[in-house]
Amino acid sequence: MTYISNEQLDNFHHLYRINLINSCSGYKSANLLGTKSSEGIENVAVFSSITHIGSNPPMLGFFLRPTTVMRNTYDNIKSTGFYTVNHIHESILEDAHHTSAKYDAHISEFDKTNLHSEYKNEFNAPFVKDAPLQLAMQYVEECEIKSNNTILVIGKIVGLYVNDDLLEADGFINLSKAKIATINGLDGYAVPELKTRFGYQRPK
Amino acid sequence: MTYISNEQLDNFHHLYRINLINSCSGYKSANLLGTKSSEGIENVAVFSSITHIGSNPPMLGFFLRPTTVMRNTYDNIKSTGFYTVNHIHESILEDAHHTSAKYDAHISEFDKTNLHSEYKNEFNAPFVKDAPLQLAMQYVEECEIKSNNTILVIGKIVGLYVNDDLLEADGFINLSKAKIATINGLDGYAVPELKTRFGYQRPK
Repeated sequence: MTYISNEQLDNFHHLYRINLINSCSGYKSANLLGTKSSEGIENVAVFSSITHIGSNPPMLGFFLRPTTVMRNTYDNIKSTGFYTVNHIHESILEDAHHTSAKYDAHISEFDKTNLHSEYKNEFNAPFVKDAPLQLAMQYVEECEIKSNNTILVIGKIVGLYVNDDLLEADGFINLSKAKIATINGLDGYAVPELKTRFGYQRPK
Repeated sequence: MTYISNEQLDNFHHLYRINLINSCSGYKSANLLGTKSSEGIENVAVFSSITHIGSNPPMLGFFLRPTTVMRNTYDNIKSTGFYTVNHIHESILEDAHHTSAKYDAHISEFDKTNLHSEYKNEFNAPFVKDAPLQLAMQYVEECEIKSNNTILVIGKIVGLYVNDDLLEADGFINLSKAKIATINGLDGYAVPELKTRFGYQRPK
């Protein structure tokens, strides 16, 4: 095995370090966050940090640096209170990843890709059309991580659209049936096949 | 598509809801956290919420409810300041998932499974032997998520062991070469194959 020390981590070239550290947490969720500005401009951006926070109330979180490209998403969430989470699947991988490019706030990524927006049930933020799993989210709170000025944004799931064939009898959503992707590092994508479910464990 | 409203989410049976909400964020990282209590008892527990927080300094976070089985891990981290993150790979899936069973703090999961601990470079917490990617972590801070009393625990990567064949020239760690797993929901496991890397995106 290769050992990389604290000191080596500090001294790597910037690009080497971001590739390494972004890969070393494991596989990440692959989502497009849809928002609309108070001026009505739609935004869609790839995020790999959407994480389960709690089931009751149903809440998800995601992380962002205050200075990144994702600021449009944050500004829109703060001004409207709403956003959508849409799962990236095999047939939109390239367009989904392209939303990481730094477009100005007045340009919609929906106009620069083959991704299309759709509106449902009078929810104010755009969903990504044809995503097999779409969540309507409402902003709840945020936490500041002091050691690096990162913000954790917490939202509540207020509605959920799921392709019928993914939803199993016990509530499990089988992501692999929709060829939903996972992210390795900054720019690696895989489309997993479910291998097994082990069920609830009790002490031996 | 099936639409599930806010009201339906609130009224589902507990088990249905936790399956659904735990599946709907997308694929999750699959890690074993290794700790040792101040009395010297080793603990190892599966976590699916390890998330990248920042690259400089290199930091990861994970979530826990104050009242869950994972409390042993949290208590050990708080009393010693150190822990390890070890990636779950194909050949230890079943033992790794079994560490979610609720064992008392005086019982080590290393004694109840075929997982073995190892110590390296005088680091005080146990690594999981044969994990293809092992991180030595130091506790940094925590954030409380007020809306559901969840805690986000933040740690700094102070050392990293990676199987030589996973580490690519630009720092990317190819998780699929080691058959590292990803988690779907509470108990579903997949072992992805890397499909593609798209690289850094600029506006069209």
